[in-house]
Amino acid sequence: MPQEQLEIMRHSCAHLVAAAVYELYPEAKFGVGPIVENGFYYDIKIPGEFGEDKLKEIEKMAVKLKNKKIPFIRKEMDIDEAIKYFSDKKQDFKVSLLEDLKEKGTTKMNAEELQDVGGDVSRVSVYETGNFVDLCRGPHVESSSEVGFFKLTKLAGAYWRGDDKNPMLSRIYGVCFESEKKLDDHLKQIEEAKKRDHRKLGAELDLFTFSELVGPGLALWTPKGTLLRDILDNFIWELRKERGYSKVAIPHITKRALYETSGHWQKFSEELFHITTREGHEFAMKPMNCPHHTQIYSHIPRSYREMPQRYAETTMVYRDEQSGELSGLSRVRCITQDDAHVFARESQVKEEVFKIWDIIEIFYKATGFGSLKIRLSLHDPDNFDKYLGTKEVWEKTENQLRDLAKERGAEAFEAKGEAAMYGPKVDFIATDSLGREWQVATIQIDRNMPERFGLECINEKGEKERIVMLHAAIMGSIERFLSVLIEHSAGSFPVWMSPIQVVLTPVSEKHVLGAKEIAKELQEKGIRLEIDDADETIGNKVRKAAKQKAPYIIVIGDKELSGEDWVVRVRGQEEQLKISKEDFIQKIVTEIKEKK
Amino acid sequence: MPQEQLEIMRHSCAHLVAAAVYELYPEAKFGVGPIVENGFYYDIKIPGEFGEDKLKEIEKMAVKLKNKKIPFIRKEMDIDEAIKYFSDKKQDFKVSLLEDLKEKGTTKMNAEELQDVGGDVSRVSVYETGNFVDLCRGPHVESSSEVGFFKLTKLAGAYWRGDDKNPMLSRIYGVCFESEKKLDDHLKQIEEAKKRDHRKLGAELDLFTFSELVGPGLALWTPKGTLLRDILDNFIWELRKERGYSKVAIPHITKRALYETSGHWQKFSEELFHITTREGHEFAMKPMNCPHHTQIYSHIPRSYREMPQRYAETTMVYRDEQSGELSGLSRVRCITQDDAHVFARESQVKEEVFKIWDIIEIFYKATGFGSLKIRLSLHDPDNFDKYLGTKEVWEKTENQLRDLAKERGAEAFEAKGEAAMYGPKVDFIATDSLGREWQVATIQIDRNMPERFGLECINEKGEKERIVMLHAAIMGSIERFLSVLIEHSAGSFPVWMSPIQVVLTPVSEKHVLGAKEIAKELQEKGIRLEIDDADETIGNKVRKAAKQKAPYIIVIGDKELSGEDWVVRVRGQEEQLKISKEDFIQKIVTEIKEKK
Repeated sequence: MPQEQLEIMRHSCAHLVAAAVYELYPEAKFGVGPIVENGFYYDIKIPGEFGEDKLKEIEKMAVKLKNKKIPFIRKEMDIDEAIKYFSDKKQDFKVSLLEDLKEKGTTKMNAEELQDVGGDVSRVSVYETGNFVDLCRGPHVESSSEVGFFKLTKLAGAYWRGDDKNPMLSRIYGVCFESEKKLDDHLKQIEEAKKRDHRKLGAELDLFTFSELVGPGLALWTPKGTLLRDILDNFIWELRKERGYSKVAIPHITKRALYETSGHWQKFSEELFHITTREGHEFAMKPMNCPHHTQIYSHIPRSYREMPQRYAETTMVYRDEQSGELSGLSRVRCITQDDAHVFARESQVKEEVFKIWDIIEIFYKATGFGSLKIRLSLHDPDNFDKYLGTKEVWEKTENQLRDLAKERGAEAFEAKGEAAMYGPKVDFIATDSLGREWQVATIQIDRNMPERFGLECINEKGEKERIVMLHAAIMGSIERFLSVLIEHSAGSFPVWMSPIQVVLTPVSEKHVLGAKEIAKELQEKGIRLEIDDADETIGNKVRKAAKQKAPYIIVIGDKELSGEDWVVRVRGQEEQLKISKEDFIQKIVTEIKEKK
Repeated sequence: MPQEQLEIMRHSCAHLVAAAVYELYPEAKFGVGPIVENGFYYDIKIPGEFGEDKLKEIEKMAVKLKNKKIPFIRKEMDIDEAIKYFSDKKQDFKVSLLEDLKEKGTTKMNAEELQDVGGDVSRVSVYETGNFVDLCRGPHVESSSEVGFFKLTKLAGAYWRGDDKNPMLSRIYGVCFESEKKLDDHLKQIEEAKKRDHRKLGAELDLFTFSELVGPGLALWTPKGTLLRDILDNFIWELRKERGYSKVAIPHITKRALYETSGHWQKFSEELFHITTREGHEFAMKPMNCPHHTQIYSHIPRSYREMPQRYAETTMVYRDEQSGELSGLSRVRCITQDDAHVFARESQVKEEVFKIWDIIEIFYKATGFGSLKIRLSLHDPDNFDKYLGTKEVWEKTENQLRDLAKERGAEAFEAKGEAAMYGPKVDFIATDSLGREWQVATIQIDRNMPERFGLECINEKGEKERIVMLHAAIMGSIERFLSVLIEHSAGSFPVWMSPIQVVLTPVSEKHVLGAKEIAKELQEKGIRLEIDDADETIGNKVRKAAKQKAPYIIVIGDKELSGEDWVVRVRGQEEQLKISKEDFIQKIVTEIKEKK
């Protein structure tokens, strides 16, 4: 089914569900019901207690209405007529929307509200579905029988028009597809995604935690989680070091002046954490590292001989995200970035971009993602005031990116409006094992920061030469990257990055000492392991280790200690591996070295 | 000379200097003139332009007055009489001090002011030194000839009574000793300290920088400085790792609730950087890491089998220091701590304390400090409300520290009032090459945080058992440690930690390629080096490298490339070293391995 038709069907499904609610709760007051990915939602104020258990009932009623083949009938009316009509029906939210439309036009409406209200101020359309009449710009299907196959998936609270001073409505989410098979496939994928939910796996593998006292959006990393972060980060550092990068370190706060110069204060102020010192000075926590890094670059004059300067730093940045938008590691207030900035001459840009591109390809191969999609994220010509700098510089830089992508032989697609404030980007998009796409790494070419901070080098002729800045993160936000990686791998990380690569389970107390000796031998080869010496059955210990997704589990008993071949449980494999100790060590050391 | 007598002499010297100012500037208005380490200062409002160039003139006049053998004459008067007396002399600052004393008593006076005002409210004393009469509690020397040997060392601005709404006075600093030799020794030490000033060396060695835009107290670490930090930090991590520590990672902010539980909010609020989110929640930037680390410990139940839990994290903490107190790296607003917390059972405390003690001894030996002094920092019994917890717990813990120090065979001295808010400490004090003492590492035993956060483990009997927390930093503040290390070593860091261990200086363009090949060979052995391929004379390049305090400088010419012995310039050594390439590599690799 073409996308457009699919959307009409889903929007009609939202009406159908609202009609079902109206049948069951005639006192209900309706907000808006727009389409979203794979389906729709509808915000409704339903009297009395209303919980997720009621969704089944509504779904049943909606199916009943669907089967009645109720026609969708469009009517038009003047806006005043519409206001009176919905006032009579005590539909306060619709009335307030209409009054707002009448007074201020569509400027104050968000995209979801516009789906219902439409763009015409003087005349509005309503749709009748049996007893239920809704304000809607349409279009809709002809009959309720055409709404396809749907399921109500969850219930959430949402403030009317997103404002916490307004009443809280019940947001009913549904998915809707053209065939029963497609609906089933989607629901299965959701089920699988739930199993892989990084919040669930994060707790099971004990990688990170959140604390009521510390607050939402602020992840605390346990020893295992920190090990995982560091393994990945150190790998990237090795790749960078080989390519001439140096580490730098900056404080996490700054005077306002730095961000006034960079432009972040003007364009980004809402998302900054602001600090007023006891002396009354205005500071901010850093939302990015580039302005600070410019100050290291420019604190002494730079000769062309020192160029390029390549600074890398894995450090936290801070965004004042709203509580409602926080979610596990996907959206946090403290973000660890594996950030890097290259200060280069114009003639060095290509080589440096390609070096970063190499790192990205190596890293995403080693972390088990297939090849990445390449997006050229360009400015939005209709919203140019969002950006810093001139049109000319933007066009020059965007053309340069196109050329680089071409020379690299990359199949890139372009996306308007996805650029950073200070320059366009090459964004790398990973596809996970459920087919979901995630923007991960990024390379940005920036001629605006160098201009604003007056960054230059002295060239061969002894003249000052304006330089270019490259911004590059490989994982980007380590928190977000790990949320993707955990769900992609379902917690079964490749051996080289598993925090625990081997679990040794001694059969009984008397095998513990022998297990410790083996452990020592393996640790000397750089293998990370745990011994489970709990006073439990061997079956139990193996089950625990398997739940930890340990790549290898080895039961240590008399045979193993006497030099006989080991029997190794290999993660994700039915058959156990019979192998000598020496061969096993060889195997795992090779896997670690080859980033398997 | 006994300390008390020395202080009387220095305080009298302050009067003498004020008398000299009065001779030269009869319109001058005098603030207070207390003693400080090695001397005194006097805050004076001097009409007209007044710069450091005028100090010589004042010093000369003071010597002249000294030689006149003017007696110090004490007189007493009622406070109202004194107010009238100083009003007549238009000494507004003295008058305001006296009025304050009359109205509010001594409660609003600071220690410096009390040196002049004294503790009696109704009757005050003044001292006459020739034409100059000063409010002062005394005592003083008999005659100006007894003030010893002095020098005015610097001039600073200081607000009257430290309040920036008051007028700015000129603060004249002087040093004063009982003999000319002692004065000279002191001045020489100051001169040497100036040469070693970490701010000066930090710039010369390009280790760190400050930026006007970022703000004072916020150090930016260059590639070389970051390398130095990382080398030291990684060494400590290796020592910790061998002893069973794990790294953890925490966000740098928290909800207020965490610090209400820990007690920091109540006892430490002034020094916290406070943040109000856009939703109006109260957050703070972390001034310590312990409260966050407790949340990692307690997020799951802990069995005795998992104990102790040892968490290490090198991370920044933040203090809202006042601008006037910031100084280079010694006092900053963003402090990097090499922090660690051990969550242990009572029975494990001794072993864990001794493990940390071992790390401290190994580290300070490797960084070139001699043996450390040990201070037991105890609570101040007269100010017990500064601390958390009960007297009983404090006494128990302090006795335990005494026992541990004894068992360790350490010659410890005790210092009341130096404890942390939550427990007593063993502080380690390093003596630098100028004989100055610096508190560096610390071990703290804390039974209060575990109580406040309810930290426990399940023991062998299945019961909940309260645990103990150890706090341990090895460098403490990395910024402050580096300020000490830079001044101690005068920037000549031991080879193993030098950011650049070898500088290769090719004789001419045609030797650059050969130098690069040698560089590659050395780098493969883990040696950090730089090639200076600038188009300059070899003498110039060697001088630059020597100024960088590179441990080894090797000129690469035809001979060196043809396999003949190298001639190596060794830092701090007149004679050059003739050595084969192989032997040189062997030598430096051994030095690095053995932390020389």
